[in-house]
Amino acid sequence: MKVAMTGAAGFLGQRFISRVLADPTLPTPNGPEAVEELRLFDVIRPALPAGADTAQEALTIVTQVGDITCADDLAQLLGDSVDVVIHLAAVVSSAAEADLDLGLRVNLDGTRMLLEACRGLTRPPMVIFASSVAAYGGSLPDVVTDDTALTPQSSYGAQKAIGEQLINDFSRRGLIDGRVLRLPTIAVRPGRPNAAASSFASSIIREPLQGEDAVLPVAEDLLLYLLSPRAVVRNMVHALGIPGSAFGTWRSVMLPGCTVSVGEMLSALARTGGSDVRSRVRHEPDSRIEAIVGSWPARFDTTRATALGFDGDGDIDAIVEAFLEDDCTAGIHQ
Amino acid sequence: MKVAMTGAAGFLGQRFISRVLADPTLPTPNGPEAVEELRLFDVIRPALPAGADTAQEALTIVTQVGDITCADDLAQLLGDSVDVVIHLAAVVSSAAEADLDLGLRVNLDGTRMLLEACRGLTRPPMVIFASSVAAYGGSLPDVVTDDTALTPQSSYGAQKAIGEQLINDFSRRGLIDGRVLRLPTIAVRPGRPNAAASSFASSIIREPLQGEDAVLPVAEDLLLYLLSPRAVVRNMVHALGIPGSAFGTWRSVMLPGCTVSVGEMLSALARTGGSDVRSRVRHEPDSRIEAIVGSWPARFDTTRATALGFDGDGDIDAIVEAFLEDDCTAGIHQ
Repeated sequence: MKVAMTGAAGFLGQRFISRVLADPTLPTPNGPEAVEELRLFDVIRPALPAGADTAQEALTIVTQVGDITCADDLAQLLGDSVDVVIHLAAVVSSAAEADLDLGLRVNLDGTRMLLEACRGLTRPPMVIFASSVAAYGGSLPDVVTDDTALTPQSSYGAQKAIGEQLINDFSRRGLIDGRVLRLPTIAVRPGRPNAAASSFASSIIREPLQGEDAVLPVAEDLLLYLLSPRAVVRNMVHALGIPGSAFGTWRSVMLPGCTVSVGEMLSALARTGGSDVRSRVRHEPDSRIEAIVGSWPARFDTTRATALGFDGDGDIDAIVEAFLEDDCTAGIHQ
Repeated sequence: MKVAMTGAAGFLGQRFISRVLADPTLPTPNGPEAVEELRLFDVIRPALPAGADTAQEALTIVTQVGDITCADDLAQLLGDSVDVVIHLAAVVSSAAEADLDLGLRVNLDGTRMLLEACRGLTRPPMVIFASSVAAYGGSLPDVVTDDTALTPQSSYGAQKAIGEQLINDFSRRGLIDGRVLRLPTIAVRPGRPNAAASSFASSIIREPLQGEDAVLPVAEDLLLYLLSPRAVVRNMVHALGIPGSAFGTWRSVMLPGCTVSVGEMLSALARTGGSDVRSRVRHEPDSRIEAIVGSWPARFDTTRATALGFDGDGDIDAIVEAFLEDDCTAGIHQ
């Protein structure tokens, strides 16, 4: 099995690669298969997570620095054949809001160019596309489902909704075998704050537990819908094994997250780290962040996702615990 | 008021132009305004409907042959300023299904290029975009609303859904003041059959009334959702007068059509033209047409459209009558 990945330098890409290094077998609709080749693509050279140097000899890892809107770069990435394309490359929400042209170029043109490149392969690849809760917005029902209209209130959300249409139409035409995973807000993300409007949702847990201060730009009663990085990767892997027909006439599915208020996140932080750790979070309202994140729904009926075998974390304590186990291995900085 | 129109050679464009020639005043959210300039753009030279030669001297009409994906052509069309852009240019449903590249180029790139061109104007123009019932599809509720997810089962529908996202995002950002009208199947369209999968819905009324045979490619129990050309133009004009804020957080609205089975259409044909006229329709099933048109819903709750002041034809007899009055002026060919 040959797997190509865009956005491979990002934290989800890195975690997926670690999963393959730890266990170079992935599900397919026809049963598990060994990964023979991992082609990693990004605008910067994707790092190889720990374990890459001791990986099995049967697994070839190729890294490529390229532009996702460059047909030649994509042709090089895909070669003559590839079994799975995992498309994670994106300009994130605040960045796409600040620069419409950049967002359109990477999120719309990039996705389209990648799909065009797939048409040149000897057989249609499976394509996993990371969409987002940000594709929802505006006037929404109390409980959102996969059947709720995508009326996003950010350019990032609009561009993800457009990507979903392209993945679905190319799948319907048999040019690819696509699966769209709408990701909840991912927390706790490892690393440093980024230009995602939801970056704070990781910062307010991650930084205090590591001895640093964090800024909360939204009110404590704001509801979020969260999924841990480990659960995202588990669901990405799961998606590879589902037959396309199981999705019916639409390949998009909202992954099951955990509905939690920012206040409940801070309470979980205090439960895990104590009140000193909790006190490292200070409130500095940012209306720009509140406008974007506040437009995302936080209550979902994920019956369809559950029926397809996807699953979430459970509760906010499990999400904090996942961070401690996966990324905060030095322990809590009291 | 300066009005630019793409797809001006098409039947809806032509009928809108006739409306302006008959009454060179259009509504705006600030009250009626005289049209000073009408800029007509298409891939072929747009004809000027009857009345153009005797139009008021105060109305300048310019026709332009151009490529909607050519930035220079669009810059020429829009000039320094334009108040209203009516975007009708499209590759229709069967053609977009037969040629994915052509549909993506005109329906996606063309719409995007037009919106990009609007960013260069001295102030944001109002943009009317013709979307379609074809943007719906797949697993749908019994009664569809503006809040139903767009899960189209044709490339044309996917491309219209993408256009809707772009119009909405550019409107939200204040780059344009957009309105998206989702058109029901338009019948009875004047002229000859075209590459729209729904072309038969006009043919089975138009051809028999004019003494010609027509082919019905679908079953008589297929339900359609119809709107007459005159009602489309009336609703397009009406949309110009609605304040953007009245649309709330989403600029798309499904226009109120008329739910009717093909069998009921044939009964209306017999009521109007007699049994000999009715017998000019012969059934030749076409699974390709049935697959596309059968994916479009036919029952809608258009409460929102009605609240915004849009309205339909009433019933199938009114639709046939509109054709006789507007386009079949030589009378019924018995």
